[in-house]
Amino acid sequence: MYSVEEARDVLVAHSKVITKTTYLPLLSCLGKVLAEDARAVYDQPPFPRSPLDGYALRGEETNGASKESPKQFRVIGKIYAGQCFDGKVGAGEAVRIMTGAPIPEGANTVIRQEWTDFGEDVVEIYGQSKPFSDYCPQGEDYQAGDVLIKKGSVIDGTSIAILASLGYAQCLVYEAPRVGIISTGDEVIEPGSSMIPGKIYDSNLNYICARLLEKGCQPMFAIHAKDDPANVSDIIKKLAPECDLIITTGGVSVGEKDIMHEVEELVATKKLFWKVKIKPGAPTLSFICGETPVVCLSGNPFGAAANFELLVRPILYKMTGNPVWNMPVLHMEIQNDFKKGRCRRFLRAHYENDKVWLPEGNHASGAISSMLGCNCLVEISESAEHGVSKGDIVCVHLL
Amino acid sequence: MYSVEEARDVLVAHSKVITKTTYLPLLSCLGKVLAEDARAVYDQPPFPRSPLDGYALRGEETNGASKESPKQFRVIGKIYAGQCFDGKVGAGEAVRIMTGAPIPEGANTVIRQEWTDFGEDVVEIYGQSKPFSDYCPQGEDYQAGDVLIKKGSVIDGTSIAILASLGYAQCLVYEAPRVGIISTGDEVIEPGSSMIPGKIYDSNLNYICARLLEKGCQPMFAIHAKDDPANVSDIIKKLAPECDLIITTGGVSVGEKDIMHEVEELVATKKLFWKVKIKPGAPTLSFICGETPVVCLSGNPFGAAANFELLVRPILYKMTGNPVWNMPVLHMEIQNDFKKGRCRRFLRAHYENDKVWLPEGNHASGAISSMLGCNCLVEISESAEHGVSKGDIVCVHLL
Repeated sequence: MYSVEEARDVLVAHSKVITKTTYLPLLSCLGKVLAEDARAVYDQPPFPRSPLDGYALRGEETNGASKESPKQFRVIGKIYAGQCFDGKVGAGEAVRIMTGAPIPEGANTVIRQEWTDFGEDVVEIYGQSKPFSDYCPQGEDYQAGDVLIKKGSVIDGTSIAILASLGYAQCLVYEAPRVGIISTGDEVIEPGSSMIPGKIYDSNLNYICARLLEKGCQPMFAIHAKDDPANVSDIIKKLAPECDLIITTGGVSVGEKDIMHEVEELVATKKLFWKVKIKPGAPTLSFICGETPVVCLSGNPFGAAANFELLVRPILYKMTGNPVWNMPVLHMEIQNDFKKGRCRRFLRAHYENDKVWLPEGNHASGAISSMLGCNCLVEISESAEHGVSKGDIVCVHLL
Repeated sequence: MYSVEEARDVLVAHSKVITKTTYLPLLSCLGKVLAEDARAVYDQPPFPRSPLDGYALRGEETNGASKESPKQFRVIGKIYAGQCFDGKVGAGEAVRIMTGAPIPEGANTVIRQEWTDFGEDVVEIYGQSKPFSDYCPQGEDYQAGDVLIKKGSVIDGTSIAILASLGYAQCLVYEAPRVGIISTGDEVIEPGSSMIPGKIYDSNLNYICARLLEKGCQPMFAIHAKDDPANVSDIIKKLAPECDLIITTGGVSVGEKDIMHEVEELVATKKLFWKVKIKPGAPTLSFICGETPVVCLSGNPFGAAANFELLVRPILYKMTGNPVWNMPVLHMEIQNDFKKGRCRRFLRAHYENDKVWLPEGNHASGAISSMLGCNCLVEISESAEHGVSKGDIVCVHLL
């Protein structure tokens, strides 16, 4: 039986990086993966820039200036941000300059206006400034030719800002993985339909769709299928060529109605694994159909949810060329006891201010209400014979 | 001059909770705020449920059963998940049952099939089980009438799963705040246009739009305006009645072109504050126009970005009824020196494995390239006279 890491590595090894690309308007690229290096065409700032409002001049000429012994300069021009000064600043000359404006040729610093008499034709300077001290050099932030964002990066708000500053109005991005989702189970009915005795509403299908949407993937299809191996096999065989990944829920345990084993025999071109050494969601099954990985998650909601984070998310990240496959991991002090041990376990939890809490109440893997408000998974290692106690430092995976 | 917390509290106090609601299909509710209590209509599970594949019977009748001295039961039926058994399990009787199926009346536990001979008419039981031990009681997860998700909660993937399990096909949600964005600055030109000497591309407008999109708000309008107080005032006056919040960037410092002070005089019905005791972005200005809060962020990209997180995000959260206004705060060991002190400062940084790094290179508040890959802000307190050193424990605000 594989460990989580082994199962993840097998899945990642069998997942292909998406190569299809498309141009999208800048803001529509949010959450997508950049398919080209974003390279600076100009220096940033594109010119030596004034960091403040004042007077641009030659710093060496301010030596010894003070309120008591001011120095005078002839003001030969005035520029605001967005303007340029055509001339050159010579000895004894200054240009009135505003924050963000290009420092004119000849000048090498800016005296802040608070140290002057705000003179319009002639200005009195009450302080001294070394050359290049109040001066943002051209290319201080980055230089023409620099790669600022590498191909394969996920585009977040900051990337959007940088791409905009580079002049990008649209970007080449990878298309999102095409993911199909099938929930199984004769006991499952669609939310919105009337309740029938013995049935439950389908939460897994909606959960997996929601998590995919949160991860920037628009599901290709999301359907519920009855516990009929031939029917589920037909769906998978028909859709696999159109999908980069298929996720199913339910039918992976050892019961008579655990149809996914039969489905696997009907459609798998390669079996990857059945069962992973964790709770919940141990019976996760995985195989390849044609060239498409199929991950069959447990039907119990938390089992499906935990394995989505631990096994499916790395596939999505690999497919989009994102090198960081895992959730961020931190260590925090746990605020409750959890006394089941001898098995590697992931528990839903909530962290805040360096501490982590397990929700009160039902921790059965089938209980979905206690997942609410959880923002992380707490990992209990196999070696923790008696679980963990309040005050222990535990491993926290941020969702 | 206000502290960040004082400025935030003033803004939050002047921000109204959105009251307009709308029904959306379940998956479209992702990221929105629930406008009704989500209440269970049925118990979950809606019936006592079998946690495994086996035989439902009366636990007390298995006392003493073992491989050596099995007990026999008459199998009076067979049910799968999604089915119901009409009869009642009497003394000496058992019903073949699969995981997820309702435990029939009369039975009070399920013997796992591995402890039986899998008998079809008569089954031999090789193990004993106490009443209600392998038995998920009706309502174990939640009960009819329970409020599972409170009005005002942000709907994440888990909420979607719970709402689905309650049978919701659509939900009543609050409309997102209507936010308008204006970037100012004559030096700023639109990405995609040709570079002109002295100009820079507008990154702030796109950054703020992107962060709003990431926070579930679709900007109402996003425009660039020249440094003309009358023009910017007209835009704000015209659009304020249609907006819940207006954000501007640039023009808030003390220069001649810092037009937002004049704009404030032209349109403000109430001034809130100018200047906040932090770096970067200290000159943030805020006022009310009509009933709409206007937050004027600094034009330097990191100043705008940091103040968006510290001041604007709390407004958005308040408006959507979310009680958690702040970023999650953790404490971690910093991996670089940062030697500027005596001023409360927020630095962009990257955390991983309980540690936090400041990016190498330029930390000037105008430099946007070093924001890339940052997932948190490190707070340096005013009392840190000489900044912080590698190995210090610092306060980390997760973005």
